[in-house]
Amino acid sequence: MPALIDSTIQKYQACIDACIKCMQACEECLSSCLKEPDVAARTQCITMMRDCIDICALSAQWMSRGSDHAAQLCQLCATICDACATHCATYQDTHCKQCAEQCKQCAEECRKMSA
Amino acid sequence: MPALIDSTIQKYQACIDACIKCMQACEECLSSCLKEPDVAARTQCITMMRDCIDICALSAQWMSRGSDHAAQLCQLCATICDACATHCATYQDTHCKQCAEQCKQCAEECRKMSA
Amino acid sequence: MPALIDSTIQKYQACIDACIKCMQACEECLSSCLKEPDVAARTQCITMMRDCIDICALSAQWMSRGSDHAAQLCQLCATICDACATHCATYQDTHCKQCAEQCKQCAEECRKMSA
Amino acid sequence: MPALIDSTIQKYQACIDACIKCMQACEECLSSCLKEPDVAARTQCITMMRDCIDICALSAQWMSRGSDHAAQLCQLCATICDACATHCATYQDTHCKQCAEQCKQCAEECRKMSA
Repeated sequence: MPALIDSTIQKYQACIDACIKCMQACEECLSSCLKEPDVAARTQCITMMRDCIDICALSAQWMSRGSDHAAQLCQLCATICDACATHCATYQDTHCKQCAEQCKQCAEECRKMSA
Repeated sequence: MPALIDSTIQKYQACIDACIKCMQACEECLSSCLKEPDVAARTQCITMMRDCIDICALSAQWMSRGSDHAAQLCQLCATICDACATHCATYQDTHCKQCAEQCKQCAEECRKMSA
Repeated sequence: MPALIDSTIQKYQACIDACIKCMQACEECLSSCLKEPDVAARTQCITMMRDCIDICALSAQWMSRGSDHAAQLCQLCATICDACATHCATYQDTHCKQCAEQCKQCAEECRKMSA
Repeated sequence: MPALIDSTIQKYQACIDACIKCMQACEECLSSCLKEPDVAARTQCITMMRDCIDICALSAQWMSRGSDHAAQLCQLCATICDACATHCATYQDTHCKQCAEQCKQCAEECRKMSA
């Protein structure tokens, strides 16, 4: 990441990075889940990951712009990341375990950020 | 960034990172430009950055999911990043110079990716 | 709007429509504000509209997909639409008045939806 | 939709509406496909709809803001809508047929818009 100009934004960098990693892990996991033979057993998790991707991407943008509402969005992001982590952790695939881990870390950073 | 599962996606990582850095630099620069006393002289650049933010964020997502249309989106992303870099490079502020640099790097990565 | 298949989603249609109208009114108002001679006095409102656009667009998508988290997102959407309406209502331009009106209506629909 | 302020944007209204309807039809169809017993046979179509949703939503936003790059984005949107329509038309479910129809109409409007 580039050196940041504004210290108000700089303090969010750890959370921005966690959101981006989580977005990417969910996108990869979702694509991989769609190719698994038991995809029919994963549809609830797929739906959950779609929400998680959207809110992680938006949270990263709002923190980057120093939005007044970033903390509130990150609070909801934490809730969704937690739910997504719980879902993903029930599967044994590497992509699911990795996704669950990124979701957990993102939830933690979002909670710290919005505290 | 986490170790990537899928080599199809892994090859996009440099471009994904460039898109995310560019999105963030544009968000920061836009917020800073809105606070400059000569904001009225920067409105065309602000409009340009908004498009740049949107397409960088989406390109990063589509590459992460291994979308069939990622290359086409990155091609348009390169065009917009180039235009945005040209605009931002006309200003002397640190945030504008930094934004121009990230846009240029992103355009280059997107061109390589979509080649 | 097309006849909707799923009654779970159908009940959200009024709120989806309000979110889309609000997104569009904010995009138009933001573009118009950037062209006003006193743009420097409108930058806080511009920043507010950017958040409003993002969350309205996402709320419409989450309702359309019947997301489990749509109500929570709409709750935040209502808060942001209210704040945006208050800001926009302080300006006399037609585009600002129209934007304030759409924000108010969207806030109301989002509150009903998330109740 | 509200009476539009700016004639530059007004001329896009038919295309904006088509993009929003298509986004919504794809979101609904995707959610429904995930619940179908033969979801494993629909994963390529699901992936296609995800791209279609994203680009329709963004095209509607860029037209609403009167972006210089709206025509280029709509050109890519038309390509993706066409591909999505072809995929969805191979299924017999009402939600797939409806989605295919909206994709076809959106592709047509996007082609007209970007001509």
